[in-house]
Amino acid sequence: MMKTAVLVLAAGRGERLGHALPKAFAALRGKTLLQRSLETAAAVPEVDLVQPVLAAVDLPRWFALELAAIAKLCEPVPGGAERQDSVAAGLAALPQDVELVAVHDAARCLVTVEEIRRVLAAASEHGAALLAVPLRDTVKRVRDGEVLETPPRSECWAAQTPQAFRVELLREALAKARADAVLGTDDAQLVERLGVPVKVVEGSPRNLKITLPEDLEVAEAWLAGAGPARSARREDQA
Amino acid sequence: MMKTAVLVLAAGRGERLGHALPKAFAALRGKTLLQRSLETAAAVPEVDLVQPVLAAVDLPRWFALELAAIAKLCEPVPGGAERQDSVAAGLAALPQDVELVAVHDAARCLVTVEEIRRVLAAASEHGAALLAVPLRDTVKRVRDGEVLETPPRSECWAAQTPQAFRVELLREALAKARADAVLGTDDAQLVERLGVPVKVVEGSPRNLKITLPEDLEVAEAWLAGAGPARSARREDQA
Repeated sequence: MMKTAVLVLAAGRGERLGHALPKAFAALRGKTLLQRSLETAAAVPEVDLVQPVLAAVDLPRWFALELAAIAKLCEPVPGGAERQDSVAAGLAALPQDVELVAVHDAARCLVTVEEIRRVLAAASEHGAALLAVPLRDTVKRVRDGEVLETPPRSECWAAQTPQAFRVELLREALAKARADAVLGTDDAQLVERLGVPVKVVEGSPRNLKITLPEDLEVAEAWLAGAGPARSARREDQA
Repeated sequence: MMKTAVLVLAAGRGERLGHALPKAFAALRGKTLLQRSLETAAAVPEVDLVQPVLAAVDLPRWFALELAAIAKLCEPVPGGAERQDSVAAGLAALPQDVELVAVHDAARCLVTVEEIRRVLAAASEHGAALLAVPLRDTVKRVRDGEVLETPPRSECWAAQTPQAFRVELLREALAKARADAVLGTDDAQLVERLGVPVKVVEGSPRNLKITLPEDLEVAEAWLAGAGPARSARREDQA
């Protein structure tokens, strides 16, 4: 079994959530998004370490949280200006013998143990994997106000986290992105640039990224068990 | 000024809305989605005709609606099995002198007069245009369970309706799709296949397609004025 870590990214500012607090520190049913994500990651049997990455200014807040009960939890490290700086900071903090790493957004705090397990298993076998859901929308690639192409809808998925990788692969991807001055909107994208196949594990729309106030409401509804039944199935079109 | 029609498509079955009724006949604040869409289309000054397209089995329901007050409204025509069959049926019902047509999903009943006007204006000038919003998600093109590519997020938009076209262009696009046995998930796609540039008009996330029960709840919230403030801006990523 490969030694396995989960990086939980909470360095985003989340101004749009309308809270004075950074979004990872927003509360959902009396518990912060960050705490929920950390707890779920720690509950995965295959996970050995859970490494939080926070904005430096938020480190004092961390110590106000009561997280002593969470197993496997490492001291937080400060993130960087860009997502991949935060990932690199988290990676740098891991012990040398960690071979498999999942990167997860704290704001996706409804992720399940089973989803994390499935992504880790796929990455363990294939090197790289991510959680994603089929998109309901017809996607248009648009440039200069005109449609460039309409990719087949059956091929269009929305990336989620966790995204998991063999550690050396992610390190190589980050180094190459840095050398090429490329910024990705997710981590898998940087690994794709190496020409390495990235496996897709089908997740659930429940694993939403909580970014806006109404996302918190949707998350509340999910937790109440009366949550939306948004299906991954495509809409009827006629 | 070109003679202008709006096709309002309501032939979808919408089983997922959990109503016994087809979705266009579901009520939102005491008014069906269909009626709302028809009223908004009729309120556009540049629109001369509003042509509903219904499933044949729903025609009896139509006559139970009280729509006499809606100006410009034509008798409904029965749609077909596929979206483009319904569009073709609507087109065939229009007077020969109609030169510009917008196709709109009845289930997008929160569309505004201004949005329809802007799409019609762009199509009048350029031949083809659609309403769309930037996607918040990182989109993956996926084939056989692996990532094929990650299109740049700044280029990924979600198509909405209305989509508007010069009539002869849409007829040609439908004929070519039929000849090639191609099924599109939206109408613009068929016009794109002709190699004709399709303009993109930025819409609003408020113009959602009501497909699932929680979509009705979101639409209620919008109508109550307390609706979600889901922004078209990209999420922060760090």
